[in-house]
Amino acid sequence: MTPSELAAAVGSGDRRALAKAITLVESERLGDQILARQLMAALPFSTSVLRLGVAGAPGVGKSTFIDALGQLLVEGGRRPAVVAYDPSGRSGGSVLGDKIRMGRLAHSEAAFVRPSPNRRASGGVGNRAFDVVSLCEAAGYDPIIVETVGIGQSEVAVTELVDLLLLVVLPNAGDEIQALKKGLLEHADAVLVNKADGDRRTSAAAAARQYESAFGLLRGRTGEAPVLVELVSALEGTGIAEVWAALQQRFAEALSSGRLAIDRAERLKRWFGVEVRRELERRVLGRPSVRALKVELEHELARRQLGIGEALERLMAEAFGDER
Amino acid sequence: MTPSELAAAVGSGDRRALAKAITLVESERLGDQILARQLMAALPFSTSVLRLGVAGAPGVGKSTFIDALGQLLVEGGRRPAVVAYDPSGRSGGSVLGDKIRMGRLAHSEAAFVRPSPNRRASGGVGNRAFDVVSLCEAAGYDPIIVETVGIGQSEVAVTELVDLLLLVVLPNAGDEIQALKKGLLEHADAVLVNKADGDRRTSAAAAARQYESAFGLLRGRTGEAPVLVELVSALEGTGIAEVWAALQQRFAEALSSGRLAIDRAERLKRWFGVEVRRELERRVLGRPSVRALKVELEHELARRQLGIGEALERLMAEAFGDER
Repeated sequence: MTPSELAAAVGSGDRRALAKAITLVESERLGDQILARQLMAALPFSTSVLRLGVAGAPGVGKSTFIDALGQLLVEGGRRPAVVAYDPSGRSGGSVLGDKIRMGRLAHSEAAFVRPSPNRRASGGVGNRAFDVVSLCEAAGYDPIIVETVGIGQSEVAVTELVDLLLLVVLPNAGDEIQALKKGLLEHADAVLVNKADGDRRTSAAAAARQYESAFGLLRGRTGEAPVLVELVSALEGTGIAEVWAALQQRFAEALSSGRLAIDRAERLKRWFGVEVRRELERRVLGRPSVRALKVELEHELARRQLGIGEALERLMAEAFGDER
Repeated sequence: MTPSELAAAVGSGDRRALAKAITLVESERLGDQILARQLMAALPFSTSVLRLGVAGAPGVGKSTFIDALGQLLVEGGRRPAVVAYDPSGRSGGSVLGDKIRMGRLAHSEAAFVRPSPNRRASGGVGNRAFDVVSLCEAAGYDPIIVETVGIGQSEVAVTELVDLLLLVVLPNAGDEIQALKKGLLEHADAVLVNKADGDRRTSAAAAARQYESAFGLLRGRTGEAPVLVELVSALEGTGIAEVWAALQQRFAEALSSGRLAIDRAERLKRWFGVEVRRELERRVLGRPSVRALKVELEHELARRQLGIGEALERLMAEAFGDER
């Protein structure tokens, strides 16, 4: 199958073609990468598919929530795709876990579930995530749900890929504090306090009030749309429909006002900038001689044996000397 | 005067030599830069001087606060240096403003006040700030107060230069919200609610409670030292002594436990990393042909005319093609 044939098959909604196309895009083999470029160039594309990010620390119940949301979407006639994105590069366990936790959705004909690739792609997993989302859109899936495991710098980059970001937290857990510290919370459109079931309902409500107060400080006076704080129980299935209705309305407003297109262009620019800088660092600073000199210069700087200007000059001479 | 003579003069506490050395370090002339490197290499250095950052939006009263704190320090037999650092590159107004607002301190024999350089140094103002702080330390000043104007990415880099960071905010102003959003608050060791005088005392106390609640979310359970939230009036001089006593104690603890040395080494590494990446971008992405191609690729990506792998590849070919 040529890349343009594969692109057409993806566009016709063939799920095996989609899986094959994703594998091609995620491949690190040079031959595959050339085919992948031709594939991406031949792909039809849509501008009105909702890309929904679901972030949160491991164990907060993201997959169970997505499974419940996905079921709701399928019952409503939608065709959701779920792309898991694990910037930590952890592999097997998480892939297996996804498949188990999204058991219902993974077996639904209307849905497409793609676990994290089980190795770290050379150009950064983020690169692939961008193309994988495009492929799912081309295949007619809507919404595209991007699940991200763990909390860190990379998740902040994920926020640039999605139109709306849900942060899933637990009542009385320390993880949400980390999320706040890493700045993820400021990108979130909604915080879901999950496992608000049984005995935990009271503590979940208290956690939700704390978040609402924190968001009051964060965005209260800036005129931005207020952040939703919802209590959900992925296990009992409560709160999910309310969250989806609110998200859908928010997306519809952004689409009709034209703000979505502007936001997407801005996010793409920021995100491409991040990828470019990462690639640049990888190419220039990744060389052993440059890395070793950087460590040496850090020690000299700490002992004040040189100024910062000289340190930069010496590192750049090493970095670019080899290129010439 | 040779660089090593100048270094010795700085080390002997000669303030005119210090001013001259700072001018040399801030100079963009190549000849000066070579002399500056020799100067920095010849400089004696101390490891126990407190570097105190004072951040906050324009108009919150940073300079007035620093003037009041500086007076207190001078009366207590200390020799504070104040280095203003304006990453926005705004010039005249701020320099003049500093001198007026720090009127008392600027005329004190025991203190040294250096306003922001009034142009943007090519290698990033941050580079110079690092060397300027080292020069002030070598000249025997202690503490070194780094004032930073405005709120943005660059201020976050300033946090890597200082041992303790004060964030000055106003009661009932929107600026502090921006600080929260930009992540500056998470680096702050203390928040000073300034202008807590007269009618504003009540609203200042309410603002302080809001901050304390936000910090509860941010650091409450991580085991880090709690953040101070103090009400001060730079105008009436209230609260300043309390803030200084608390900061001094915190610094003494960090120094005696050895944590200061570890923290400084880590900060230096992060900060040098930021400067290295900035320099790398400036050299590689700053070229007009590369910039133009980047904009073109952003448009093509937005229209899905190519995948991310190809976009990166084409940009790198343009960037490094010229280097070879």
